[in-house]
Amino acid sequence: MYRIGFGIDFHQLVEGRDLVIGGVTIPHHKGALGHSDADVLLHAICDALLGALALGDIGMHFPNTDPAFKDIDSKILLVKCFELIREKGYRVVNVDSSLCLEAPKIKKYSGQMREVIASCLDLTIDDVSVKATTTETMGFVGREEGLVAYANVLLAK
Amino acid sequence: MYRIGFGIDFHQLVEGRDLVIGGVTIPHHKGALGHSDADVLLHAICDALLGALALGDIGMHFPNTDPAFKDIDSKILLVKCFELIREKGYRVVNVDSSLCLEAPKIKKYSGQMREVIASCLDLTIDDVSVKATTTETMGFVGREEGLVAYANVLLAK
Amino acid sequence: MYRIGFGIDFHQLVEGRDLVIGGVTIPHHKGALGHSDADVLLHAICDALLGALALGDIGMHFPNTDPAFKDIDSKILLVKCFELIREKGYRVVNVDSSLCLEAPKIKKYSGQMREVIASCLDLTIDDVSVKATTTETMGFVGREEGLVAYANVLLAK
Repeated sequence: MYRIGFGIDFHQLVEGRDLVIGGVTIPHHKGALGHSDADVLLHAICDALLGALALGDIGMHFPNTDPAFKDIDSKILLVKCFELIREKGYRVVNVDSSLCLEAPKIKKYSGQMREVIASCLDLTIDDVSVKATTTETMGFVGREEGLVAYANVLLAK
Repeated sequence: MYRIGFGIDFHQLVEGRDLVIGGVTIPHHKGALGHSDADVLLHAICDALLGALALGDIGMHFPNTDPAFKDIDSKILLVKCFELIREKGYRVVNVDSSLCLEAPKIKKYSGQMREVIASCLDLTIDDVSVKATTTETMGFVGREEGLVAYANVLLAK
Repeated sequence: MYRIGFGIDFHQLVEGRDLVIGGVTIPHHKGALGHSDADVLLHAICDALLGALALGDIGMHFPNTDPAFKDIDSKILLVKCFELIREKGYRVVNVDSSLCLEAPKIKKYSGQMREVIASCLDLTIDDVSVKATTTETMGFVGREEGLVAYANVLLAK
């Protein structure tokens, strides 16, 4: 028995914040703005896991008005979402994700991101994909005002 | 035998129109502009159902130049798409959807939306997910000029 | 054993270039800018295939700085990605894709696109969906500055 899930997340890029993507802190002159560590990729995967089993969304489980989640490491949120999936008897088959950002290049960090995600979800890195693309300088991503992550997951019982 | 489908839909938000999302009319000072009731979420799900079986898209089946579909309740379109799926011997396993809109908050309406969608597709609400996110004030969604819906479906024969 | 994959691709629309989408050259006063033939749809499908098996992304396999891929026919890239999938013992179950572009209308070309894609992936056109939507004049797609393609694939072993 399979289920599919999809997540999308957005964060602004601003001076004076760390850029944390897929659990990896990436050197850059801007970072992602948010209540938690603003990890756009892990948030998208959280939403995909929750969505696959119709368990709500990340905003319902971890409200950005709750001080408990201020500056929280999003790996903790991802593990919590995974626990919810497991409680329902499901495992993750594979995760495929796409980052849209103009800069920096994340290629040399994607292996490390996959390891982080795999370890949170009880997978090997062969089951976790992190892709990246620019938007060819178009829109708010192209102007480096923000970044977007998409995640698709397949679950099996 | 499984199949996956994906849909995306866009509508402008303008004064003087109702805001109908997932079959639910939501109080707001703007509504979605369109030939039908402009239900961005049901349209995305229609496209995901059609796409999973390569049956065309919502624009081919229900042209926005056809007076028959003027102001039509999009639940009727969703049921028609589901009938096309069933004629091919498929059922829907699950639907996961994401709304991108800056305002209003739709959390308190998402349960009702899931009921509407589930009833159209012969599912329970546990098989239908409606998530929501802002775009962190970026882009046309962030400027409240419009809204976007994404839908992913898994079908089985 | 199933796997899901997702791809997204962006290209600018500029004067003096051909508009190649899904392997079909479409008459239009603008074309897609890129190092290869800039086929936004085939690139999104390439990324979805690679992503499903965590084999990297199109930018890793076919860098846009490599003269070997200058003006290359993206069907060649798609076939290469499919070969990587087959080497891992997988076949494509179905492809569902969505184009976001304001103009031109691609409806009369979508059948031909599906034939191209099906022939690259050893499928019939009933397993390949190409849908299209405008963004209702919003954003960079709405201003006809660019176009976006989304692709979802289901693979089976």
